[in-house]
Amino acid sequence: MQNRQLVLASRPVGVPQPEHFELVETTLPSLGEGEFLVENIYLSVDPAQRGYVNDEDNYAPPVAIGEVMRAMAVGRIIDSRHNDYAVGDYLYGWFGWQEYCICQPTAVLRKVDPAQAPLSFGAGLLGINGLTAWLALEDIGKLKSGETVLITAAAGAVGSIAGQLAKQAGCRTVAVTSSDDKGKQCVEEFGFDTWINYQNPLETELQRACPDGIDVFFDNVAGSIGDAIYGHMNFFGRVIQCGTVSIASWKPVPQGPRKERDILTRRLRVEGFVIFDHLARYDHAAQQLANLWTAGSLLYHEDIVDGIESAPQALVEVYAGRNRGKKLVRLRNEDSTSI
Amino acid sequence: MQNRQLVLASRPVGVPQPEHFELVETTLPSLGEGEFLVENIYLSVDPAQRGYVNDEDNYAPPVAIGEVMRAMAVGRIIDSRHNDYAVGDYLYGWFGWQEYCICQPTAVLRKVDPAQAPLSFGAGLLGINGLTAWLALEDIGKLKSGETVLITAAAGAVGSIAGQLAKQAGCRTVAVTSSDDKGKQCVEEFGFDTWINYQNPLETELQRACPDGIDVFFDNVAGSIGDAIYGHMNFFGRVIQCGTVSIASWKPVPQGPRKERDILTRRLRVEGFVIFDHLARYDHAAQQLANLWTAGSLLYHEDIVDGIESAPQALVEVYAGRNRGKKLVRLRNEDSTSI
Repeated sequence: MQNRQLVLASRPVGVPQPEHFELVETTLPSLGEGEFLVENIYLSVDPAQRGYVNDEDNYAPPVAIGEVMRAMAVGRIIDSRHNDYAVGDYLYGWFGWQEYCICQPTAVLRKVDPAQAPLSFGAGLLGINGLTAWLALEDIGKLKSGETVLITAAAGAVGSIAGQLAKQAGCRTVAVTSSDDKGKQCVEEFGFDTWINYQNPLETELQRACPDGIDVFFDNVAGSIGDAIYGHMNFFGRVIQCGTVSIASWKPVPQGPRKERDILTRRLRVEGFVIFDHLARYDHAAQQLANLWTAGSLLYHEDIVDGIESAPQALVEVYAGRNRGKKLVRLRNEDSTSI
Repeated sequence: MQNRQLVLASRPVGVPQPEHFELVETTLPSLGEGEFLVENIYLSVDPAQRGYVNDEDNYAPPVAIGEVMRAMAVGRIIDSRHNDYAVGDYLYGWFGWQEYCICQPTAVLRKVDPAQAPLSFGAGLLGINGLTAWLALEDIGKLKSGETVLITAAAGAVGSIAGQLAKQAGCRTVAVTSSDDKGKQCVEEFGFDTWINYQNPLETELQRACPDGIDVFFDNVAGSIGDAIYGHMNFFGRVIQCGTVSIASWKPVPQGPRKERDILTRRLRVEGFVIFDHLARYDHAAQQLANLWTAGSLLYHEDIVDGIESAPQALVEVYAGRNRGKKLVRLRNEDSTSI
């Protein structure tokens, strides 16, 4: 059986471009004992993937040259030699940018129940994006009704969900976006109270948008936008450091204004949040998110392209801020899996 | 009745020098209803005092020109028109760099029990220094036996206590100091496992001193020393931002390497700690500290100078790192109060 895979062809500095990947065709080996074969249906495209291929200090060693691109995906088991993983089960996990993945249980993040929500949601709203929004707000945000929550990359897959959850918690929500279009989308669709286009003078915009200061800063971007925001944090504010997408490279580490004094005098709590630390709570959080969506209380957008060959360009689009919702690559129709 | 007071004569940039203060003699007004008169015995000299006089964003508005220098002190009530505050009571509070202070209850931090420990301890070990060490470790440090705790300004009033508490919690303790002398004192007297003189190449020193990385960074200094330390923080490490004494001025805000990536990928929790937020727990923590000292389990040094006119130079000494223990200015013998 043949497998098409996107492998890393050369190591990028900064955002990987299509030329850093090569589409190769390989023959799938047979399953070993305890393994199962996943046919990928939706490949996830995530800002974190830049970090997977850059040669920088990170969560895990970088993807090796010639290795399949690290990625999450939703797929279906089409063969199995593991008693807990049955043919027909839908899974979400580290299945890579490829058509098929021979897996062991450690690759699995969650079993996906297609009755809970559309299957693709398993890679976004009920995958790391929604789970990140939910669990980061619960663990670090600790929202109180009436507080102001400011979110960067607010129109993105995590930000748009976090904004809606914060609004439902009774908070004033402020979106920071890269364009007026996205800002309007945040207010009109995701219910943010106001938005800031970060291309405009930030100081004036922050004063207008956050007259009572900021209690929770949900930061997906880092860099100079965050710098301006620290100056508006309220005493005992919480900063969720969830991403650093505005910084193209951390080698060498870029300079910025020191934050120690703001952290001290304003008694801020700044904390890094990585969703993979919280596996045990995924199903609980996913159920809450699915319930909200089913009740019509949560809007969720997807931006889906077709065909494995589209994945590298899809990642470029994410970094350029041109996606409108969770970026996914669809490899096949859900009802046409090859069992 | 005459009162000698150190008032702010001009506004310093950075560390206040003796010429920024003026010793004046004023006549004490009579007590109003609900007020009481404190005769100061020990004036506290603290790194935070720079922040009280600099025209910078801070905990509170700066001391005005002509106003008595903001400071904590231990004193004794010698006159009272308040039912809860009796003549003879010892107090610790915001009594200023002056001989006498007409107070209302809001100025009081703690009643001091002279039977618990030497009276001067009320301004240090059982005052903000010991209380900071105790409560910051409890709230943010959350020490686990076997962890590595690194403390900057480790020979100082807070650091030397924090190091001993961390050691008693079963942690490996690493002192960062400005000299070998202070480093040796940390190991030989305060029981640190090892020390780093920050004048030496920090990277090499950190590798030697922290072979298993750092779990808790108790930071009293900020700046470039802290920058190097972040690179050695373990996953889920905690950073207690307790002071920023190495930064002479925050106007303009100095630049430094960005920490967002370390905070995110290492899942750090960085939190500002200000002791004045925790008034309700002072007595409990002070009792624990007094018990440890009485049992001989806690070493505490004081560096006492005499006479109110010594206070400005004492503050200079603190910033120059020349004090050996908690710096205090003694105004009178404890048994010679003027009742």
